[in-house]
Amino acid sequence: MQIIPPPLERLIKSLGSLPGIGKKTATRLALNILRRPVSDARELADALAGLHSSIQLCSRCMAFSEDDPCAVCADQRRDSSIICVVEQASDLMAIEKTDYYRGHYHILHGVLAPIDGIGPEEIKIKELIDRIESKSIAEVLIATSSTVPGEATASYLIDRLQHFPIRLTRLARGIPMGMDIKYADQYTLAKAIESRSSAL
Amino acid sequence: MQIIPPPLERLIKSLGSLPGIGKKTATRLALNILRRPVSDARELADALAGLHSSIQLCSRCMAFSEDDPCAVCADQRRDSSIICVVEQASDLMAIEKTDYYRGHYHILHGVLAPIDGIGPEEIKIKELIDRIESKSIAEVLIATSSTVPGEATASYLIDRLQHFPIRLTRLARGIPMGMDIKYADQYTLAKAIESRSSAL
Repeated sequence: MQIIPPPLERLIKSLGSLPGIGKKTATRLALNILRRPVSDARELADALAGLHSSIQLCSRCMAFSEDDPCAVCADQRRDSSIICVVEQASDLMAIEKTDYYRGHYHILHGVLAPIDGIGPEEIKIKELIDRIESKSIAEVLIATSSTVPGEATASYLIDRLQHFPIRLTRLARGIPMGMDIKYADQYTLAKAIESRSSAL
Repeated sequence: MQIIPPPLERLIKSLGSLPGIGKKTATRLALNILRRPVSDARELADALAGLHSSIQLCSRCMAFSEDDPCAVCADQRRDSSIICVVEQASDLMAIEKTDYYRGHYHILHGVLAPIDGIGPEEIKIKELIDRIESKSIAEVLIATSSTVPGEATASYLIDRLQHFPIRLTRLARGIPMGMDIKYADQYTLAKAIESRSSAL
């Protein structure tokens, strides 16, 4: 028997295709949307419908943006001689939240994953190299994740960029701020010992 | 600085208003939608836009349905003399999944919560009483949740329905199937002892 009406089933399926949203959560969300005023559903539908048409990639840093260049690339107060290379737009947002970094970015839109058929051509590495070749860049800070594909991508980038007259840097690895030593995993702890800094 | 483009921000805000979706999850979902083909976003937008217009409440059981009466109420093979009263459509779905219950339903679309201003008039209690008065109902199975508002709603229903010539029943309370006794909370365990059944 068809307990769930097809239009609801369709929404559940569509919501369920989002990452981290299983069938149960999708059902809960869809029922919540159904219980709320129709204006809420329409607002969400409109936000979705207009998304791709109004957002493009910044031709310099590959960030999602309404304008080209994006706000970061267009900001004259930022240091354009340093490029922080991140995997995804969400990494850029995380770094911006620190309010510490004042340089430019380059978003790869992925990591190298040969098993999934993602090689250097599939992510924005060529665009990064073009930037380094055409502009005066002093430093490239590789800020890929500390995961296997993130590290592999970093290694590949180091290999491709090391002959340029630039400073190649990476994010420090160590004990997270506020973390109890006894909860740190052995690899992080080993890295923190290896990269220890002067206490003075 | 506007790091997140306004159309993306709008989608994040709209997704973030869904239950259990915080700002971080909403951002992750929105970026995922942006990375995927525009057809996926359009499919979700269409599913949302068409939802309220194509779904109504079944005039008998108050279930969400494209047709009135809904598939359950229209099914001649189901026992129309028993009504299972649930809080929400999701409870109906959970019970249907058991493939055990073959009667009809009544969805309250809420629970009594005087503090939030939700009294008997705000949920579908009148409609339930109308059904009991106008049709030959033999049993009403109260299947509200085992929570404070769920229990309060059950008590209220028992009070309102006890003078009808019907059998009033409730779901059994006890140890969940497959649960280790030592993990059961004290109240459930006490209830399971109180409601113990013959082992023969």
